[in-house]
Amino acid sequence: MIRVALLGCGVVGSQVVRLLDEQAADLAARIGTPLELAGIAVRRPGRHPEVPEHLLTTDAAALVARDDVDIVVEVIGGIEPARSLLLSALDSGKSVVSANKALLADDGATLHDAAAKAGVDLYYEAAVAGAIPLLRPLRESLAGDRITRVMGIVNGTTNFILSRMDATGAGFDEALAEATALGYAEADPTADVDAYDAAAKAAILAGLAFHTRVTLSDVHREGIGEITAADIASARAIDCTVKLLAICERVRGDDGTERVSVRTHPAMIPRSHPLAGVGDAFNAVFVEAEAAGSLMFYGRGAGGAPTASAVLGDLVAVARNRVNGSRGARESTYAELPIQPMGEVGTRYHVALDVNDQPGVLAQVAAGFAEQGVSIQTVRQEGRGDAATLVLVTHSASDSALSATVQKLAGMPFVRRAAGVLRVEGMAGE
Amino acid sequence: MIRVALLGCGVVGSQVVRLLDEQAADLAARIGTPLELAGIAVRRPGRHPEVPEHLLTTDAAALVARDDVDIVVEVIGGIEPARSLLLSALDSGKSVVSANKALLADDGATLHDAAAKAGVDLYYEAAVAGAIPLLRPLRESLAGDRITRVMGIVNGTTNFILSRMDATGAGFDEALAEATALGYAEADPTADVDAYDAAAKAAILAGLAFHTRVTLSDVHREGIGEITAADIASARAIDCTVKLLAICERVRGDDGTERVSVRTHPAMIPRSHPLAGVGDAFNAVFVEAEAAGSLMFYGRGAGGAPTASAVLGDLVAVARNRVNGSRGARESTYAELPIQPMGEVGTRYHVALDVNDQPGVLAQVAAGFAEQGVSIQTVRQEGRGDAATLVLVTHSASDSALSATVQKLAGMPFVRRAAGVLRVEGMAGE
Repeated sequence: MIRVALLGCGVVGSQVVRLLDEQAADLAARIGTPLELAGIAVRRPGRHPEVPEHLLTTDAAALVARDDVDIVVEVIGGIEPARSLLLSALDSGKSVVSANKALLADDGATLHDAAAKAGVDLYYEAAVAGAIPLLRPLRESLAGDRITRVMGIVNGTTNFILSRMDATGAGFDEALAEATALGYAEADPTADVDAYDAAAKAAILAGLAFHTRVTLSDVHREGIGEITAADIASARAIDCTVKLLAICERVRGDDGTERVSVRTHPAMIPRSHPLAGVGDAFNAVFVEAEAAGSLMFYGRGAGGAPTASAVLGDLVAVARNRVNGSRGARESTYAELPIQPMGEVGTRYHVALDVNDQPGVLAQVAAGFAEQGVSIQTVRQEGRGDAATLVLVTHSASDSALSATVQKLAGMPFVRRAAGVLRVEGMAGE
Repeated sequence: MIRVALLGCGVVGSQVVRLLDEQAADLAARIGTPLELAGIAVRRPGRHPEVPEHLLTTDAAALVARDDVDIVVEVIGGIEPARSLLLSALDSGKSVVSANKALLADDGATLHDAAAKAGVDLYYEAAVAGAIPLLRPLRESLAGDRITRVMGIVNGTTNFILSRMDATGAGFDEALAEATALGYAEADPTADVDAYDAAAKAAILAGLAFHTRVTLSDVHREGIGEITAADIASARAIDCTVKLLAICERVRGDDGTERVSVRTHPAMIPRSHPLAGVGDAFNAVFVEAEAAGSLMFYGRGAGGAPTASAVLGDLVAVARNRVNGSRGARESTYAELPIQPMGEVGTRYHVALDVNDQPGVLAQVAAGFAEQGVSIQTVRQEGRGDAATLVLVTHSASDSALSATVQKLAGMPFVRRAAGVLRVEGMAGE
């Protein structure tokens, strides 16, 4: 028999408890021995009437330390006390299954080192993209291939907000209020809106894809709080929509060496791109590998039952390993690639400039880009006179050059307003 | 060092050789020890100038029997000699990686039994949907969940043909000729067109999803050779397209017991369905599980490099297991669910009846369905007089009742022609 300690019994934890009960016979058949819940650490035992009372404890440290616990499942989230509890579990030879993206992105190395030292497993499929099997395919199915890019929608809250803005023309505040009312956004939406959540997932994905330790602080992060209805309209005018993307790329630095670029920011993508159709709270991730080509994974990125499904998948794997006396795939960091600074990352920009319709405007704008060596893919003038707008999409150039150029243009005397100043991803013509 | 024998060096095998060479350092880092190619069994050594000559042999049996071989990779395809060679490899304690869907679907049980007896691994991710990580997610990531349905496009050749028929209005013969000219269809297209290939993959998917042994003979199989331009036009008229689907479902029999339904046949699906947008030679598979909800996996389903990527992923896993002295997830057949006969499977039908526009026709048609207890979801009359057509879509009922009813209606005296007699999948309203 394999005995499991559960840390946390909220939206995800309560579903883990339910599935462990309802699927007990199936789980035992798959593992070769039954799984038993040894205890559940919670803050307020009175709030969990659905759980057998004798399993509840407020002393998580004591539960983790129990000799009869084989595997610790952590669904508390946050850095502390989760980190101390998991380190204590690993140090005492227990395997760990965690859904904690913040902790893994902040200090995964310490946890991995502890797992390696103790010879136990550390699995965390549920930390990224909820129910979507993504980490296991990255680190196992594609282990013989060379991943070049991972790009996806990994935060459901912001995807809901941007989808509503696109569908209804609402502004950011209005769409956020709707998301909050429907329970898609938390009372304090900072982690989602400012893209801390997406950045943590990007760090985890980049680390797995490129065999390099990547932490949250390595990720260039821009949230969606500044996205306006005008930006969405600008995107629509070039048949695009705006999505918050997590992007991990294997790139070449100026010196020719391989580097890892990891970033999360809103971007325009063509409506014909498969990610454009990912609505509401769904997640989808594109993976490009040299031999495999393009792969896409799609599904529910959050929610109690979907996240619990991922936790249970890991739990079965870890339990099987214990039964067999073996271990699963470990952290792989042999490549140790440096992180590409955001300024050097090749990106593309869209900008719509409301301009005074006078001779020479286009020439001056074009010269502004040329000065920085940035090539323009398309430029289109809409309207005449007071309603004249120049809509530009650039080719790829260094982000710092593009950003500086666009800001400079936006400040030119004949420019009345710059809208839709956003990066562009997934568009042909590169 | 782990030594690998490769059986076959065609489109896939030559890519396996290339990747083993180009990725050697990465593979060694991931496995913890180098992989070395011990030999390659081919029929005509003169045809492989790209491969080191000293590795080539025509004696596959002797290569498999060599003491210094740890893992056998089989990309020959077909039942024999592949089965005998793999059984010999497993019996002598070698792990096996195979891309052979026909063999796995025909007699996977014998291979699994041999692997279990010898305590070695048998992996075959490349056998279904090429580069798309699908088998590993099914048997590992979702191991704690309960899969209810797997539905997908798993044959690129037929998907290319149907996509062309849809895009150009071409008939089947014309689209097949185009597929052959472009290399998407083989000289003898029977395995693809008559859905033997898709049926083999359906058998493998159903076995993994439902923990039951499923063989090719358990799969209800209908090919696309009878699909006409008129069928495609009928589909278009109700905003659908026609796809060859592999469908594996957990169902209830008339007696209330759980059963497995496995089938592959062309079906109309709404253009808004994600599978409708899967074009050309791509594959995509939907998986529905109780806790995870809907998941989709998309990518290249065939081709040398994509299939080799899947082979290499398995090879890394199997090699790691050997280094660790462990084994991966084994065959899981504990559920042993019976197969639902196709006649009892719940399906829906579309039929467009060109009728004489006379009083009472609709009443007689409706009565024909009602007699069999089949409920009609939508009926629409198009045109008048000689051009009158009744377009019907039913609710779900037993396939045998539906099939019999539709055939009977098609033979009624006032029916001049029945077109688009096809099952309907993925449509709302069930």
